[in-house]
Amino acid sequence: GRTQMQEPEKQVGDDENTLITNGQDLSVDDVSTLYPQVGPYFSDGHRRVDYVLAYHIQKSVNIRRRSSRFSDNNFIQGLRRSLSMRSSRAPLQPKEDPEIAAQEQRTNYHEDDKRFRREEFEENLLETGLELERDERCKIPGIGFLKIHAPWNVLCQEAELMKLKMPTKKVYDVKQGSNVVEKIRLFIHKVTAPLHPKVDANRQDSIKSLSHPFSREKQHLTRCTRAKYSMGITSLLANGVYSSAYPLHDGDITEANAESNDRKLLYEEWASYSVFYKYQPIGLIRKYFGEKVGLYFAWLGVYTQMLIPAAIVGVIVFLYGCATVDDNIPSMEICDSRNNITMCPLCDRACSYWKLVTACGTARASHLFDNPATVFFSIFMALWGKGSFKNRNQKIHKKHTKEFTATCTSCLYVQGEKVKLTCTDRLPAYLTTVMMMCFLILVTFAIVFGVILYRISIKAALHVSTYPTARSNIRATVKTTAAIINLIIIIILDEIYAAIARFLTNLEVPKTDKSFEERLIFKTFILKFVNAFTPIVYLAFFRGRLVGRPGNYLYVVGSYRMEECAHAGCLMELCIQLCITMLGKQLIQNNLFEIGIPKLKKLLRKRKSELDCKEEEELSKTLQRHEKDHLLGPFNSLNPEYMEMIIQFGMVTLFVASFPLAPLFALLNNIIEIRLDAKKFIMELRRPIAARAKDIGIWYNLLRGLSKVAVIVNAFVISFTSDFIPRLVYQYMYSPDGTMHGFVNHTLSYFNVSDFQPNTDPLQPMHLGYKVEICRYKDYREPPWSSTPYELSKEFWAILAARLAFVIVFQNVVMLMSDFVDWLIPDIPKDISLQIHKEKILMVELFMKEEQVKRLAARDHHYQDNCTLPLSVPQSPPQARSRPISHTNCC
Amino acid sequence: GRTQMQEPEKQVGDDENTLITNGQDLSVDDVSTLYPQVGPYFSDGHRRVDYVLAYHIQKSVNIRRRSSRFSDNNFIQGLRRSLSMRSSRAPLQPKEDPEIAAQEQRTNYHEDDKRFRREEFEENLLETGLELERDERCKIPGIGFLKIHAPWNVLCQEAELMKLKMPTKKVYDVKQGSNVVEKIRLFIHKVTAPLHPKVDANRQDSIKSLSHPFSREKQHLTRCTRAKYSMGITSLLANGVYSSAYPLHDGDITEANAESNDRKLLYEEWASYSVFYKYQPIGLIRKYFGEKVGLYFAWLGVYTQMLIPAAIVGVIVFLYGCATVDDNIPSMEICDSRNNITMCPLCDRACSYWKLVTACGTARASHLFDNPATVFFSIFMALWGKGSFKNRNQKIHKKHTKEFTATCTSCLYVQGEKVKLTCTDRLPAYLTTVMMMCFLILVTFAIVFGVILYRISIKAALHVSTYPTARSNIRATVKTTAAIINLIIIIILDEIYAAIARFLTNLEVPKTDKSFEERLIFKTFILKFVNAFTPIVYLAFFRGRLVGRPGNYLYVVGSYRMEECAHAGCLMELCIQLCITMLGKQLIQNNLFEIGIPKLKKLLRKRKSELDCKEEEELSKTLQRHEKDHLLGPFNSLNPEYMEMIIQFGMVTLFVASFPLAPLFALLNNIIEIRLDAKKFIMELRRPIAARAKDIGIWYNLLRGLSKVAVIVNAFVISFTSDFIPRLVYQYMYSPDGTMHGFVNHTLSYFNVSDFQPNTDPLQPMHLGYKVEICRYKDYREPPWSSTPYELSKEFWAILAARLAFVIVFQNVVMLMSDFVDWLIPDIPKDISLQIHKEKILMVELFMKEEQVKRLAARDHHYQDNCTLPLSVPQSPPQARSRPISHTNCC
Repeated sequence: GRTQMQEPEKQVGDDENTLITNGQDLSVDDVSTLYPQVGPYFSDGHRRVDYVLAYHIQKSVNIRRRSSRFSDNNFIQGLRRSLSMRSSRAPLQPKEDPEIAAQEQRTNYHEDDKRFRREEFEENLLETGLELERDERCKIPGIGFLKIHAPWNVLCQEAELMKLKMPTKKVYDVKQGSNVVEKIRLFIHKVTAPLHPKVDANRQDSIKSLSHPFSREKQHLTRCTRAKYSMGITSLLANGVYSSAYPLHDGDITEANAESNDRKLLYEEWASYSVFYKYQPIGLIRKYFGEKVGLYFAWLGVYTQMLIPAAIVGVIVFLYGCATVDDNIPSMEICDSRNNITMCPLCDRACSYWKLVTACGTARASHLFDNPATVFFSIFMALWGKGSFKNRNQKIHKKHTKEFTATCTSCLYVQGEKVKLTCTDRLPAYLTTVMMMCFLILVTFAIVFGVILYRISIKAALHVSTYPTARSNIRATVKTTAAIINLIIIIILDEIYAAIARFLTNLEVPKTDKSFEERLIFKTFILKFVNAFTPIVYLAFFRGRLVGRPGNYLYVVGSYRMEECAHAGCLMELCIQLCITMLGKQLIQNNLFEIGIPKLKKLLRKRKSELDCKEEEELSKTLQRHEKDHLLGPFNSLNPEYMEMIIQFGMVTLFVASFPLAPLFALLNNIIEIRLDAKKFIMELRRPIAARAKDIGIWYNLLRGLSKVAVIVNAFVISFTSDFIPRLVYQYMYSPDGTMHGFVNHTLSYFNVSDFQPNTDPLQPMHLGYKVEICRYKDYREPPWSSTPYELSKEFWAILAARLAFVIVFQNVVMLMSDFVDWLIPDIPKDISLQIHKEKILMVELFMKEEQVKRLAARDHHYQDNCTLPLSVPQSPPQARSRPISHTNCC
Repeated sequence: GRTQMQEPEKQVGDDENTLITNGQDLSVDDVSTLYPQVGPYFSDGHRRVDYVLAYHIQKSVNIRRRSSRFSDNNFIQGLRRSLSMRSSRAPLQPKEDPEIAAQEQRTNYHEDDKRFRREEFEENLLETGLELERDERCKIPGIGFLKIHAPWNVLCQEAELMKLKMPTKKVYDVKQGSNVVEKIRLFIHKVTAPLHPKVDANRQDSIKSLSHPFSREKQHLTRCTRAKYSMGITSLLANGVYSSAYPLHDGDITEANAESNDRKLLYEEWASYSVFYKYQPIGLIRKYFGEKVGLYFAWLGVYTQMLIPAAIVGVIVFLYGCATVDDNIPSMEICDSRNNITMCPLCDRACSYWKLVTACGTARASHLFDNPATVFFSIFMALWGKGSFKNRNQKIHKKHTKEFTATCTSCLYVQGEKVKLTCTDRLPAYLTTVMMMCFLILVTFAIVFGVILYRISIKAALHVSTYPTARSNIRATVKTTAAIINLIIIIILDEIYAAIARFLTNLEVPKTDKSFEERLIFKTFILKFVNAFTPIVYLAFFRGRLVGRPGNYLYVVGSYRMEECAHAGCLMELCIQLCITMLGKQLIQNNLFEIGIPKLKKLLRKRKSELDCKEEEELSKTLQRHEKDHLLGPFNSLNPEYMEMIIQFGMVTLFVASFPLAPLFALLNNIIEIRLDAKKFIMELRRPIAARAKDIGIWYNLLRGLSKVAVIVNAFVISFTSDFIPRLVYQYMYSPDGTMHGFVNHTLSYFNVSDFQPNTDPLQPMHLGYKVEICRYKDYREPPWSSTPYELSKEFWAILAARLAFVIVFQNVVMLMSDFVDWLIPDIPKDISLQIHKEKILMVELFMKEEQVKRLAARDHHYQDNCTLPLSVPQSPPQARSRPISHTNCC
């Protein structure tokens, strides 16, 4: 972007700084002189506003007292002099205006304190070399603005302190591999050309310029810690000294005739649903929003891309299920009315015997999700989880290494005041946290159990009711309402838990911002995860297992029998639950929370700023950039976005064995999500501070943890929830002819109806039209005529052993394979390592050449003239340093 | 050490280098002038010999032709001039002496070629600024020496290129935590004082000097790659152009009146069995041998230290077994002759029925290793494996970060000529490797199977033999001889496999030395691992499981029945095997390979150098340092040492469930091993090139892999090899009174002797004195009177399920706990991170102070005089740079 090239500061005259300003691109940006009022510039029209601090002002007093204090540069000199004289926060101002102070002392005392703290802070800013301009006569009443400009030399100093890399003039081209490889690469590039956004930065990606740590020929130091600024902007914002602080957006996007800027470009090429099929312009996003936001979108993009193969394979597996549903012997046997199997009643008293053939539909539907392809798909997804997240990390690393090297962080955000707390101070908070977390998890369990009870009781009530229409729709009604109730509870609890997690983390008073964020994320993650997955885990592993057997059922809360699964396993219900949770959560959270609520907030904020709706529109055209941005929502954090994606990743990987379409749903959601988030960042929110980030932080660990858990969960889903293992065991151990014929009969045990406990036998035993003596139920138990009736049979133990063996084999095979994948995919992609290697060699060559020349020169005693150095490294960077940092992202 | 402080080069006079030589410690080492003949100095007695290249010379021709060519410095000038004139390796010398060339052309052509390549290489060395001295008149005939001295400016250049850190004058003290913590630390320090070696370097460890990247005020470059030196010393050594290359040892250790030097100090405080209880002087080892060797000993030390708790717990577990052996109900039941259980014969025909009470001894012994404490111990060791190796890595990291920062690598060792090989060129080699590896693994299996056959056949033969003495000792004899045979085979194959792995890796022509080493290590590891563990894995998991049942035994190679285990499981035999392998391997490898063979080689080498034994002793006193070192063995690589330790680590962690004393044995071995290796490095070997290393490389991955595999292997050993699970299942599922009474009876199935296959029933059925109708055997099968005789019973499946469930639970619990341990132990220990943080803050403070002064000065336009800078960083390092690098370790 042209507007990013800022004018280097020219007033600086010391020896050190001439090195920096002797670049060639000293031309002043012409745009700034054309739009002095609208553009984001100081009143001189030249100095760009890099950052804005907003604060509340008392209209009557303040406007009169300090109109345009900073309007002329002489003030800075005066302030610097006053700085050297005063050492404490003594209230100087009230002494100057004693009559006003006497009158309003009480109400103003708090305001004054804030004002003095602002002044102190502003002095500090001036001291670091920043330039300030105050604007209290703006069109938003009650709000004062302090515009900050960071001159070139301050930027350079920070860049050096942070060891930013700068592109040098020396360029080299990256050719990957031999001619054939290069041709294929070019071909792919050509084919995928329409997928790339039309952003200039992405053009010449085979030619890179040699980057070099920013240096002003001096010691490199480590990090921007600046521990001495104990009074940081964070704590000033928290105390209300300033009401907000933000850098400015580039310009307008809505006006058609506005000049082209990065924001407009991003709006057109990124934040629009019409370009959903294109890659994201990651370089530009990074440049505009900083590394942290860039990294989020890069990660989201790569994750979405990785979902494509998973979705395709998932759809194929589903289609395979559809295609083979008619060849499936077990469901054929269930649907064959000639088999005439009488099943035991599903509830006490009210229910009667039923025929297995009525479960035909469920059995056929189950096959869609419970077929041999599912096992393959689980293994695929376990490796995908590992591979994708490795690959993802890699690609992000790639972006990071080669593209994320030139942004600098605003050093305004220094750490808040530190309060030394000992272990004993912290103990109560930690205890509270642990207790509260346990309590909340128990609450989640209780709620899930409540939903189960709801299901059981409704079912029983409906069974008892005599309306035939109600009874026919029993199952469908109960399932759907229960799933929807679950969903609503999950969404409501999600919001409550997020608030509680924040409260608990505040209690703990973590030492650093990073620690605060990590603790908050960890707590929120645990609560949200438990909340989202408890109903699913119950369905997958507990439902239908704690039932007991006919004649000895398990009862809860008085006389409710635990739920049973349909004949073909609980997989079908698990599938429905997953489907509703994923779709519902995504739709509601996307629509309601991400679009609706921000709009509502914006509306409220506008109300607050006391502007009438009709005036507003007229005003908005005349508003200056920093005033317009003030009306936008503040940028808080990326954590909710990440959290949503992590829970989705969990849904996709953890229970993929039961729902092969999950990746497809996730993919569709993410395609929308990217553009939705983009729109939010471009249009709804103030520009975030560009923050440096080397990776996605704690989220990486959570992803890794999830992909580990996914392996074992999938192993259990396949072996315990699906009928895969029983089928296999039947086929190879018990089947008389090696086929699946007779499998259904094998899974059903016999029950003698005379063994019912008193008052549990059906009220209508002749419901089916004949007297039932032996009914069947799904379990592996001894028949009534064995020596140990109704005990678990040998088949039960054999199948259990097989299930467990499968878990061990699956887990270890997948772990081994994923370690192999790990080993196959290098930590740094080959093209990147090639590039790094090339850069290193070029650097060393330069160095060696210079060394040799110098040594020879020294030996021949001609070493007086510096000009003899042919390719002197220390000399070349200053010339190449004309565009080191994008101005607007810097402090 | 004082002798390490070398005189900086004073002849250098160019602007750049004055910065380096303006330190204060310019005093010439007095020692060098006192011992000009014996000390490791050039003939001028001042310049130290840093490195020696040795080569073979043809006595008659060469001595005459080039006596002391390098004796005066003028030669260097001449050589440099000749360098500019000649561009090819044309044989100039033969033209000078045509009459000799004509006579000896054939035999000399090869020699001449080598000589010219030497000359070319030496010119390159001169060009890089090194100083050379030739010595062909030494006391070892046929060997010429080229002594190399690296002047101060060359060292500095390399140091800068490698970004070595140097200690600055600014020191700071590291106080850890509050007063109490500090007091405890001091107390511990006082108590452990005798454990620390008496080496000066370890004194003031609470005061650190601020280290800083070595800099001569210019661009920092990345790495010593120097790709242009395609003709490296490695390839010259490989082609025989030079016969050996080594830096010199510090001085003599045997002479009592020799001056104190690092070598002598290390000999006294490290390489002696009398200091076995002390910590190693890691700092000094690093300084003397370089980082790579230092890291090995640091790792070995930490590993040995970590073995102490493991050994203690192991001994406690063993003692618990000893204490509870009399309360163990299963062994009591076996030993109770009233039970009178008749067992089925152990072999066909020759063997007869036997009474269970005769297995009493084995059952009691088995309890020592197979008791509930073993399970606890396995979990402990699985976590230990993970924790120790994390901790180990950490401590090494600590050493690395704070101590391993000042050594530089010899850049003489540049990569050899690169030959571009495509994939198709490599394919045959890769295929050969894969095939060969598979073949060798099969050979190992075959050999193990052979030993099994030996055991079976010998047993059968002994059973048939009529000598009663032979029969009574059957078991003991067979077990012991088989284990010893196994051991011998393992040791022999180890050596063969190492050679084959090297051969295969050479075939592959890896691109870099690092890749070569990694491939070699990987191959060697796989082969040695398979070799060492196949017999153990067979014993643990296969023996006694593939037996069949009475009446339907499994036969191999004609009519040999597979081996059975003793009644109480195979754990006892596994234990014996482990014990013999560990002890035998360590004793033989330590004594024979590490002490015996090097001594033999040394002897042979001395023979080769054509010195008579009697002359030798007299000569050795007059020999110069480089000649003495030439008589020592060459240092090859640390890989055998690491490999030995990795295999030991495998023994300790993988099968610890079956042999709780393994950590104790390993500990005892390692205490000896450290001192043995130390002696070898100090006395037997030439000094190794100091090589830089940031970690232990591929060994870390192997360790991590082993500790992962250990979890699953231990899970299987406990659940399948030991009787832990059957006992548990019996107690909670089948026991009538909840105790272990009746367990032995429960594990034995019934066999009707009439069901023996023809010609397999015992020849002496009346051996026990009564007619046997039902005999018992160890398995869970239906009795002869059931409807499905001899089929696997319900108990079998229940116990199998329990075993598998235990594996899953164990594996996942340990994995979870080890992840927790991972999370608990930070990657960088707290004290180190504190130190790093402190350094960073100090650096930033310096920088900020300087910046501020500069800016103020610039504003006030007083910025002309450099002296106003109060704590200028660029200025201070040169003064502090007086002792940056230990001279002898550098190129």
